[in-house]
Amino acid sequence: MRIVVDGMGGDNAPKSNIEGVVNAIKEYNVDIIITGDKDLLEKELSNYDFDKSKLEIVHTTEVIENEDKPVKAIRSKKDSSMVVGLRLVKEGKAQAFISAGNTGAVLAGGVFVVGRIKGIDRPCLCPALPNVKRGMTIIADGGANADCKPINLVQFAGMSNIYASKVLQINNPKVALANIGIEEGKGNDLVKKSYEELKNLDLNFIGNIEARDVINAHTDIIVCDGFTGNILLKSTEGVAMSVMKLIKETLLSSTKGKLGAMLIKDDLKKLKGYMDYSEYGGAPLLGVNGGVIKAHGSSDSKAIKNAINQGIKFVKGNVVKEIEEFLEKNQPGDK
Amino acid sequence: MRIVVDGMGGDNAPKSNIEGVVNAIKEYNVDIIITGDKDLLEKELSNYDFDKSKLEIVHTTEVIENEDKPVKAIRSKKDSSMVVGLRLVKEGKAQAFISAGNTGAVLAGGVFVVGRIKGIDRPCLCPALPNVKRGMTIIADGGANADCKPINLVQFAGMSNIYASKVLQINNPKVALANIGIEEGKGNDLVKKSYEELKNLDLNFIGNIEARDVINAHTDIIVCDGFTGNILLKSTEGVAMSVMKLIKETLLSSTKGKLGAMLIKDDLKKLKGYMDYSEYGGAPLLGVNGGVIKAHGSSDSKAIKNAINQGIKFVKGNVVKEIEEFLEKNQPGDK
Repeated sequence: MRIVVDGMGGDNAPKSNIEGVVNAIKEYNVDIIITGDKDLLEKELSNYDFDKSKLEIVHTTEVIENEDKPVKAIRSKKDSSMVVGLRLVKEGKAQAFISAGNTGAVLAGGVFVVGRIKGIDRPCLCPALPNVKRGMTIIADGGANADCKPINLVQFAGMSNIYASKVLQINNPKVALANIGIEEGKGNDLVKKSYEELKNLDLNFIGNIEARDVINAHTDIIVCDGFTGNILLKSTEGVAMSVMKLIKETLLSSTKGKLGAMLIKDDLKKLKGYMDYSEYGGAPLLGVNGGVIKAHGSSDSKAIKNAINQGIKFVKGNVVKEIEEFLEKNQPGDK
Repeated sequence: MRIVVDGMGGDNAPKSNIEGVVNAIKEYNVDIIITGDKDLLEKELSNYDFDKSKLEIVHTTEVIENEDKPVKAIRSKKDSSMVVGLRLVKEGKAQAFISAGNTGAVLAGGVFVVGRIKGIDRPCLCPALPNVKRGMTIIADGGANADCKPINLVQFAGMSNIYASKVLQINNPKVALANIGIEEGKGNDLVKKSYEELKNLDLNFIGNIEARDVINAHTDIIVCDGFTGNILLKSTEGVAMSVMKLIKETLLSSTKGKLGAMLIKDDLKKLKGYMDYSEYGGAPLLGVNGGVIKAHGSSDSKAIKNAINQGIKFVKGNVVKEIEEFLEKNQPGDK
């Protein structure tokens, strides 16, 4: 098994990427390829002592920036650390690709360079949201597909169910449909039709879930179109951060509050870290012919190391093969 | 002007409804009709001293419960406090109707009993979300229409703009489109097409807003389909309440935290009340031929009084006539 890491993607690249790679090699004894500017990467690597036989550098001359238009960047920057990394997966020289770079470009590159699994209409991005039980809830799709048909939601459910079982090792994951009411028959056309299909799938479908309960850990997976998934993710992020800010402001407005704030500072900090979904590693793009994992843009070395570990589990869990088997059983061509 | 109040709707009816009505008569010197069981209402009213010439009771024999199917309830419970109240608006005997009862029934009754304004395809519900500047952000639509076309979002924008100006007295309200990115051209088909129409309207359209900024008071109004609106509202509610709960748990898990918690208890309580959107009065159903205001199900007497005041401002602001003028200027029939 080989994992390829985009050495130039992310706000803290290449420093955090290199440190994450070195720590992953030490901890998981994994073979890694890193793509990027050779001089830059070697200079950074010289700070570390590790088994150099486990790492290969593939030199690239271009970088896809966050400001780049995703599809255009994938098509025009052929020698970027991202496109070259994805191509290594396509060619079977590596089994999973990790990048903390431009999200849209990772999605576009996953589809155009690595390619979709035969029978998959739309791959989906599956980020995880922290929940009140200090666990994670997977959002499928978390933003790759703004417009969806019922067949897409059915495939998102099947793929994320496999990911949750095989990579996150959740036993018989609960799958719920994001909706505006819990009763069957609620919602817009898309969710009403999807509900009918989801209840016939061979997985643990528990019905609808309302947005207010997303954070309450009632389910392991939330299935939705990517527009709704993005609204859910960003609304949760925005409200959590704003409430923490409001608490700080409220406390600092009174003497008693200031005293209290001093006492609870460490607890609040711990809580803030826990609510920050960037700490939860990467989001896989499911439905392409290999592992493609998008790490958060602000990933530190720990987040990169965690994403590499996700990649290892993705490969060991045979996720691509499992998805192919799901498709065979559920004949998406008929729908 | 006369305002009609559903005497039997809401978790605290008729007690809070009566107290709210009495206080509204005292504070706003307004004429009110209350619908419901006459004996029950008179018994409750006997606790208060007020100008009885300002209040009329219209006796009704049925109540629409929260468990009732909305459309069926409106059609079958013809002598319910809700249907009778709505009919009084339809017949011009009152200009606005307030209910804390079954939300779906208020929406269905607004459309089927009071009737749509000619040219309005879909009326919209406009609840307000608290924001970090301790103000409110209006969501249009907040859940009345799960499936929408661009013409609906255009009308939601026009109607909520009038409501924000005339009732909430916001000067030149900012109107934004809920989306998954801020750049023009982002989003699903609905928002892309709606964006094109919204930028040509004669109102202060500021472009797209992401869900993470909904709480940050960057805009006065957020336009979206009702499915998205419901996700935004309930996700905000769920996350805010859960974060407060997590903070409590975190603090109570350490001795230092417990001490801090004692000091900040009052501040947190204040903040919790502020985040609870049920405190912010009613949500108008815009696009029907009269004032229809849905107060929160758990409304206390203050919330009922505030909703009555909203009704008064709705009538004084000539909202229905303003919406008709908006339609004339923007010829929705052409789209």
